[in-house]
Amino acid sequence: MRMFSPDARAAARALRPDADTVDVVVARAAWSVIAEPGDGAAGALIREVGAVEALLCALDRRSPEEASRRVRTATDLVGVDKARARWLPRADPRAVVQALESARHVKARLLLPGDAEWPASLDDLDVHAPVALWVRGRPALLAARRRVAIVGARASTPYGEHLAAELAGDLAQTGAVIVSGGAYGIDGAAHRAALRVDGPTVALLAGGVDRAYPAGHQRLLTEIAARGAVVSEVPCGAAPTKWRFLARNRLIAALGDATVVVEAGWRSGSLNTAGHAASLGRPLGAVPGPVTSAASAGCHRLLREYDARCVTTTQEVRELWGEAPVPGPAVDAPDPDRTRLLDALSSRSALPVQELARRSGLDEARIAALLGILDLEGAVRRTDGGWRRAAR
Amino acid sequence: MRMFSPDARAAARALRPDADTVDVVVARAAWSVIAEPGDGAAGALIREVGAVEALLCALDRRSPEEASRRVRTATDLVGVDKARARWLPRADPRAVVQALESARHVKARLLLPGDAEWPASLDDLDVHAPVALWVRGRPALLAARRRVAIVGARASTPYGEHLAAELAGDLAQTGAVIVSGGAYGIDGAAHRAALRVDGPTVALLAGGVDRAYPAGHQRLLTEIAARGAVVSEVPCGAAPTKWRFLARNRLIAALGDATVVVEAGWRSGSLNTAGHAASLGRPLGAVPGPVTSAASAGCHRLLREYDARCVTTTQEVRELWGEAPVPGPAVDAPDPDRTRLLDALSSRSALPVQELARRSGLDEARIAALLGILDLEGAVRRTDGGWRRAAR
Repeated sequence: MRMFSPDARAAARALRPDADTVDVVVARAAWSVIAEPGDGAAGALIREVGAVEALLCALDRRSPEEASRRVRTATDLVGVDKARARWLPRADPRAVVQALESARHVKARLLLPGDAEWPASLDDLDVHAPVALWVRGRPALLAARRRVAIVGARASTPYGEHLAAELAGDLAQTGAVIVSGGAYGIDGAAHRAALRVDGPTVALLAGGVDRAYPAGHQRLLTEIAARGAVVSEVPCGAAPTKWRFLARNRLIAALGDATVVVEAGWRSGSLNTAGHAASLGRPLGAVPGPVTSAASAGCHRLLREYDARCVTTTQEVRELWGEAPVPGPAVDAPDPDRTRLLDALSSRSALPVQELARRSGLDEARIAALLGILDLEGAVRRTDGGWRRAAR
Repeated sequence: MRMFSPDARAAARALRPDADTVDVVVARAAWSVIAEPGDGAAGALIREVGAVEALLCALDRRSPEEASRRVRTATDLVGVDKARARWLPRADPRAVVQALESARHVKARLLLPGDAEWPASLDDLDVHAPVALWVRGRPALLAARRRVAIVGARASTPYGEHLAAELAGDLAQTGAVIVSGGAYGIDGAAHRAALRVDGPTVALLAGGVDRAYPAGHQRLLTEIAARGAVVSEVPCGAAPTKWRFLARNRLIAALGDATVVVEAGWRSGSLNTAGHAASLGRPLGAVPGPVTSAASAGCHRLLREYDARCVTTTQEVRELWGEAPVPGPAVDAPDPDRTRLLDALSSRSALPVQELARRSGLDEARIAALLGILDLEGAVRRTDGGWRRAAR
């Protein structure tokens, strides 16, 4: 097998003319073709010996002695021998060339670890981090300072869509990148709201970036690719399988500085994203809704079982990543004596201090002091017979 | 002042013919008249020397030497001297007689610490515990095994009332006592739902049990008094002042094994009840609602700021006091390889294992093993060309 064929190198150079080493571009494109997302054996092998040599080892092109010497030093590579059996059936050099050429065709960029736009937050995924990202649009958004994942049910309600749009619109307007999965329902509402305020948004797809999935979002995804970014770790042409949706969810969670679930059914895929966010230590928010709405059951579950924060406003989303809370309208901690004296006062008839003492259960000295303050505030009036409450 | 006058003793004996010591009945009735709810100085003094002697000390009928010898031994009685100034204006023996006689008139019972029906949970209020409780109806409900406070906004919505009724009805039907404040809105919905299923319910009032407050709940309160219990720590005739509402809230919280807030505005009085529950270490639940509803803002605040549990079902309320959770529909933790193999299989055309390996990214041995299981389950079918997915 000739992974590093002249064809492959030419396609790689055409796609990434700026790359220092064209073999790394070929190798990572190949890994993206050969390994399913999140393949820990591939990740460990690449980390140990680099993408190029890892590929040669994987395809057994190195002499067995050399490969084993290099590979067997790493204790976490125990799965590599077994993994070869699943990598080899896919190791088709033509598929790699095609992935590179298709990307160029749809003007996708192949983003690699080490690129300035590579999001450092993906390192948290350890050996399960993507080997590369295929990006249509603005890769710089992936490394932008503030990214928030807003995800939720496909079977959303107008309530959830309204909330998703409100939160995403407000956050995008102040520069936060809205990360979501491009799906119907909440995802779509979040993307659209960001676009509406000309704010940044990133759609992470389970299939290739050349495939509109869902098909009904063809136009939306084209718009996101034009003004934001459409991103996938699988190459062009790859189908969005169930497995890849689950794997994609970990990327959404890892990319967001915080994840907010707006609506989610009891078994919604968004809970999977939320679970990833929680296990990555990312702040997790859930928007509550009517308990009578099945579309909010998953959010309530996140509040109960995942220790998600209850978020109801954009400001509360911002607090997820540590922005200082804006104090809400303060709840009075009223002086109890003051409350009791006001309870005792009448607005109809003036009462002597002695009677106020009886009514309020306060002593006369305390009452005299409080009346002085209330008088200054204009809350009471002194008349011949004593004190009365001032009309408002 | 003759607190223990023959009139007072006669009224006390008529109200509590079963009492061991009539003077204790008089003294606690008197304290209920003289001290505002939650008066810590009164509570400390009574704890130190008993209700009768405390009253004599308070009214300065003991010789100063004796009073000071008894009282000044207790370090937490520093407020007593000052407190006398607020007690004395109210120390009217006729008011005590009237309180006792009015209670008898409306068939209220004066419940005292030490009575079998006295709820031990009030001890958690320490010196702020009530000196006595005036009870119309069934005092035994106060010491029933399971009591749950269901409270919320007066300005409730149909959503909140529906939820309050559902939770209260379900819980009352299984024997839990529904404790609430008798107010319009959520409180009323909770009481009514309990009565509807012929379940136990207790209304804790801020004013005397002879006064229907709110007036529009006259009929409801009469019904609760007939079939449940209407309770107050202030004597008959006492007005429900703002202070007494706040003080009453602590009783609701202390009496409930758990407190659930169903709807509450941002500054709702229910938050005060919730705050008491939290500071007493009682489990606190809040029912979420639409974030677009001002009537749920206080509940969401409880979730955020008071660490309340999100409750959406009766079962979740029960979990507040430690009943084992009923597991919800389990979320599949599917075998990832199985998901990937199912993704790779086609229902239209049979595929050889080699092709399945390429598609799924799994090795052939693993695929063979999984196909065996799926075959047993009837999920796949073997045909000449290989394997296909079985039609559902």
